[in-house]
Amino acid sequence: MGKTRIGIINVTGYAGVELARLLRQHPEVTLSSVTGRSAAGQRLGEVFPHLAGIDLVIKPELEEVDFAFSALPHRESATEVIPLVTRGVKVVDLSADFRLKDAAEYQRWYGSAHPDPGLLEEAVYGLTELYRPQVAAARLAANPGCYSTGIILALAPAVKAGLIGPQIIVDSKSGVSGAGRTVSLQTHYPEVNEDVSAYALGGHRHLPEIVQELELLAGKSLSVTFVPHLLPMTRGILSTCYAFLVPGKVAAGKKGEDEMRHLYSDFYRDAPFIRIVTAPPHTKHTWGSNFCLIYPAIDHRTGRLIVISCLDNLVKGAAGQAIQNMNLMLGLPEATGLQAQAIYP
Amino acid sequence: MGKTRIGIINVTGYAGVELARLLRQHPEVTLSSVTGRSAAGQRLGEVFPHLAGIDLVIKPELEEVDFAFSALPHRESATEVIPLVTRGVKVVDLSADFRLKDAAEYQRWYGSAHPDPGLLEEAVYGLTELYRPQVAAARLAANPGCYSTGIILALAPAVKAGLIGPQIIVDSKSGVSGAGRTVSLQTHYPEVNEDVSAYALGGHRHLPEIVQELELLAGKSLSVTFVPHLLPMTRGILSTCYAFLVPGKVAAGKKGEDEMRHLYSDFYRDAPFIRIVTAPPHTKHTWGSNFCLIYPAIDHRTGRLIVISCLDNLVKGAAGQAIQNMNLMLGLPEATGLQAQAIYP
Amino acid sequence: MGKTRIGIINVTGYAGVELARLLRQHPEVTLSSVTGRSAAGQRLGEVFPHLAGIDLVIKPELEEVDFAFSALPHRESATEVIPLVTRGVKVVDLSADFRLKDAAEYQRWYGSAHPDPGLLEEAVYGLTELYRPQVAAARLAANPGCYSTGIILALAPAVKAGLIGPQIIVDSKSGVSGAGRTVSLQTHYPEVNEDVSAYALGGHRHLPEIVQELELLAGKSLSVTFVPHLLPMTRGILSTCYAFLVPGKVAAGKKGEDEMRHLYSDFYRDAPFIRIVTAPPHTKHTWGSNFCLIYPAIDHRTGRLIVISCLDNLVKGAAGQAIQNMNLMLGLPEATGLQAQAIYP
Amino acid sequence: MGKTRIGIINVTGYAGVELARLLRQHPEVTLSSVTGRSAAGQRLGEVFPHLAGIDLVIKPELEEVDFAFSALPHRESATEVIPLVTRGVKVVDLSADFRLKDAAEYQRWYGSAHPDPGLLEEAVYGLTELYRPQVAAARLAANPGCYSTGIILALAPAVKAGLIGPQIIVDSKSGVSGAGRTVSLQTHYPEVNEDVSAYALGGHRHLPEIVQELELLAGKSLSVTFVPHLLPMTRGILSTCYAFLVPGKVAAGKKGEDEMRHLYSDFYRDAPFIRIVTAPPHTKHTWGSNFCLIYPAIDHRTGRLIVISCLDNLVKGAAGQAIQNMNLMLGLPEATGLQAQAIYP
Repeated sequence: MGKTRIGIINVTGYAGVELARLLRQHPEVTLSSVTGRSAAGQRLGEVFPHLAGIDLVIKPELEEVDFAFSALPHRESATEVIPLVTRGVKVVDLSADFRLKDAAEYQRWYGSAHPDPGLLEEAVYGLTELYRPQVAAARLAANPGCYSTGIILALAPAVKAGLIGPQIIVDSKSGVSGAGRTVSLQTHYPEVNEDVSAYALGGHRHLPEIVQELELLAGKSLSVTFVPHLLPMTRGILSTCYAFLVPGKVAAGKKGEDEMRHLYSDFYRDAPFIRIVTAPPHTKHTWGSNFCLIYPAIDHRTGRLIVISCLDNLVKGAAGQAIQNMNLMLGLPEATGLQAQAIYP
Repeated sequence: MGKTRIGIINVTGYAGVELARLLRQHPEVTLSSVTGRSAAGQRLGEVFPHLAGIDLVIKPELEEVDFAFSALPHRESATEVIPLVTRGVKVVDLSADFRLKDAAEYQRWYGSAHPDPGLLEEAVYGLTELYRPQVAAARLAANPGCYSTGIILALAPAVKAGLIGPQIIVDSKSGVSGAGRTVSLQTHYPEVNEDVSAYALGGHRHLPEIVQELELLAGKSLSVTFVPHLLPMTRGILSTCYAFLVPGKVAAGKKGEDEMRHLYSDFYRDAPFIRIVTAPPHTKHTWGSNFCLIYPAIDHRTGRLIVISCLDNLVKGAAGQAIQNMNLMLGLPEATGLQAQAIYP
Repeated sequence: MGKTRIGIINVTGYAGVELARLLRQHPEVTLSSVTGRSAAGQRLGEVFPHLAGIDLVIKPELEEVDFAFSALPHRESATEVIPLVTRGVKVVDLSADFRLKDAAEYQRWYGSAHPDPGLLEEAVYGLTELYRPQVAAARLAANPGCYSTGIILALAPAVKAGLIGPQIIVDSKSGVSGAGRTVSLQTHYPEVNEDVSAYALGGHRHLPEIVQELELLAGKSLSVTFVPHLLPMTRGILSTCYAFLVPGKVAAGKKGEDEMRHLYSDFYRDAPFIRIVTAPPHTKHTWGSNFCLIYPAIDHRTGRLIVISCLDNLVKGAAGQAIQNMNLMLGLPEATGLQAQAIYP
Repeated sequence: MGKTRIGIINVTGYAGVELARLLRQHPEVTLSSVTGRSAAGQRLGEVFPHLAGIDLVIKPELEEVDFAFSALPHRESATEVIPLVTRGVKVVDLSADFRLKDAAEYQRWYGSAHPDPGLLEEAVYGLTELYRPQVAAARLAANPGCYSTGIILALAPAVKAGLIGPQIIVDSKSGVSGAGRTVSLQTHYPEVNEDVSAYALGGHRHLPEIVQELELLAGKSLSVTFVPHLLPMTRGILSTCYAFLVPGKVAAGKKGEDEMRHLYSDFYRDAPFIRIVTAPPHTKHTWGSNFCLIYPAIDHRTGRLIVISCLDNLVKGAAGQAIQNMNLMLGLPEATGLQAQAIYP
């Protein structure tokens, strides 16, 4: 019997091609069908020369597969995903269409009614480290946003342990590939190079999923400010998270930092892609890999917790985590095909 | 009678060469003496080809001048500056040696006793917009740190007006030139390119001057967290400042934002280099210029004030502001020689 | 009587905004009218925050001016320029529409018949250093292409002196702003960052003007290969020109290099923006300035001349040279308003 | 019996860490010993966080291994390599110490007498595609320079076939990691970012090995000019090679290009890491991979051959090719452990 056949819907965006790259080196599955409207009819390697080793033609529609990834934009993705799941093909959806548990919240942030609130409820939020057993049993996993992944992973241990108050501020810095492959003046080289700016101060769409997940962990309501920034680099997200320590819960001085680090290490003791580090991490240390580095620190002067996380937005923040979820959904070891180290420098 | 003769001590760092560039296009003064140990004996244009138009030899010691800038590192700077001021030469010191009013605080952050606490007390903190008359009357102005300039300017109006509580978080993003011209692995191209990281979580040396100035404005004690980040770009600092609005002081919705913007515009109405902007600013909009752009915004969901400022760390954050101070100290219009627009893209 | 009123047709591209920036600091003229279709009705400073200091509204049509720059694309430019010149307004055209003396050559490279071959013949090729008196007398100057400027300046002295044979190879490296402000996948940040590639191997449109000008200088036909490359930087063009020394004309060893440098220095002795340098130049040494640095070297092993030139493609390669031409056409000193040094680092 | 034990001498440079990264994912060997003076005593993952998955301590001296790589600088490398080879450990030397067949040429370019001319003569030039059987039989392979690899691969088919004359010009563009991990002002971020420059016009040390290999293929003497350029990117070398077609040997027009492409494809038909491409290649298409892309084109106007090659200087230009050679020397399939696709974008 052959390997599990995998399909990628909309292979032509950055998450899609990254899925193709990673699946090619996956030992247990075979990429058998890729779709993409604009490039339909072309060989994958013609459009993406770095994938010349993959012998597939981009098709307008998905062929018969055992498992599918959707890398379509939101709304379009649900339209493709719903019938697939219905007819028994397991799916990891990289869009935002199945991330928010509350259909009203979906409508508020995405501007249209959700097409299938039942499936929305059933879908598992695919932050693998938090939902391992649920993902393993899921028909549909909603792959988290790239910002959301790093931020929730950074704050989950402290929130879960009740060490911080409800006031949380997250300042994120992202490379440009997170904005996708569609051209725009904001991502035109001369505009981004030698520049940094904040955006989406009115509310970024990853905020509601961050709040949803952190409040589930906290068991209470939180007050989260999230400001993303665009940086002159291609890959990488670094999030600096600021919170207020509940007085008396963490020791003073170095002892407090050790406690915090042990709490984090313990929380992620079974997570193959999380590294709790002892110095401020660099996005470069995750480049091209599925790792998320987390550095919890304490600002003793002010009694605040500062947690910095970083990851490659196209791997752990998108395609890598999607495959991590696929592994669980197919009954494979979580890290299969994803063990590559980061490429430095 | 000739133009005022200006000297630069330690012209060979990035702040020093930027002073030379800007002074050359200044209509009222003439750069007449530049020093630098390693490059002594060479023409300025040999070491810095972009300054080929300046006909000066780098000397080991300063020649007779009417006004001097010191671009030496801290401690070394005080050693050169004190005798100059004593013999009547006005000085702008770009180092940290005269920024902190409290000599004990200086010792705590810089590791040695201050060599002249009396002059430390006399020196004016050269954040021009806040200390215009004091600078005009000063013998010695202590040019603020590059981070400090943008952060204090961003928060001063709200702090002064009592609109925010004492809890303040500042997340800054800096280009690499702020780290100076001395080579290090941290600023080696392959290490910084395609990377972002936080540093100095234990306390950056610009923190005490930020706290000193904001507390003076607030008239009370503040609790400030400051985390700087290094970005893959040469020039520019963007600071994102988070604070908690005092309830009831600012109107809800758009009205509150208008009030805030008016407060800021009013605070800086006489400041030729401050622009209160209506969209998140880009460091690129200040590249090569002496402008600081400030964007006050309100996160209505959480009742927080977010103020973003940006500037060119080598101009408004160093050499440009130093000349702005010099202009006042020489009785010249504040903006003389500094009106160049930013260079875009 | 007021200052000369200047207009910019199509201010919204990179050459257009750079003209606006430079004209604002020009002491003898005043920018009075700017056009641009997409942004018509907006203030210049709204679209380009770095130009907030210029109080002008972008209009759909040019208002009454004394002198105009056209920064339109080719073909569209001729349509606007011809009636202006006809009714007595002097023009510098930054497009390619009036650069080629031979209307057939224009048709071959630009794909349509030239709309006014008479004016084409009359127009002066605005490489200021080669055509100073002709530009001064011109009604219409055709500003050279950005590549053409650096390449012709690099080779002119050796070609004119008959020191090199007809076989010439030019390898150019350009920043992305040369491709303009119109977005495309080729200039999308993640595609260009951390990448270099050659393009236009079938023949770049700057080739015919390079050949036209070098053959005029040589008085004979030349065989020129020109390959441009796109680099991950915003501004700057560096061209490395390879040619074969005519045997016996240049001394061996260091003496030959000195002779060559003197020939070049002499050729450009009256040129305020050309610097003959003694070490391989960096584009960074010209950033934001109107200078072109030229480094002639001899590969003694092979008897070849290597000349490297560099410039800022938006200043000496476009807007700066256009103003240099305007100065001459208005009877002003050539360097008026253009003396700013490069900004480093 | 265990896997072959591999050692890396001087793991702390960029080639060394890249060897470690690639060897970790190699299925047939195990990295068992790494040396490095400055970092001796530290865990590999402490110094290089991206290698946290490798459990090795950096030692001052190499432990017992079955095969070794030397990533030391030239001269130091020979000192370590000679005794290793003598006592029967096969070695790939990444330095320049065993590349030049002629000891006098070594002395001319590297300034000291070669310590073991006999071993120099025996060593195989490790450009795998040209010396496959010799490498397989070698005790010592001299890994080619990063520039040399791309340039020789680009020109070999045309030179071997006698299609081009002896006049060759090579213009190369390199990322900064090629200059190594040792800090210098030339590789200080603010100096390289937004800059391009040529260097080593007096003769780069890769020139003699390029000439040696091309002349062996040509069977006659050649006249090669080679000018390298430093670009603001971390990885990647693109070489643009210009030569003169021998008249009458290649058909005119598209037919000639097809012939040329077939010649190249045929020459490299057994080479798993060479791709003859049909459009100008991008270094980005090779990022992190062991591929070399080659694009032969004809400039019909001038009768010239232009061949563009690109590769990742740390993989095919250093560590990857070294492992490719090791594979052959150990009797493994050439591509073992090296099949990763490039990472894009």
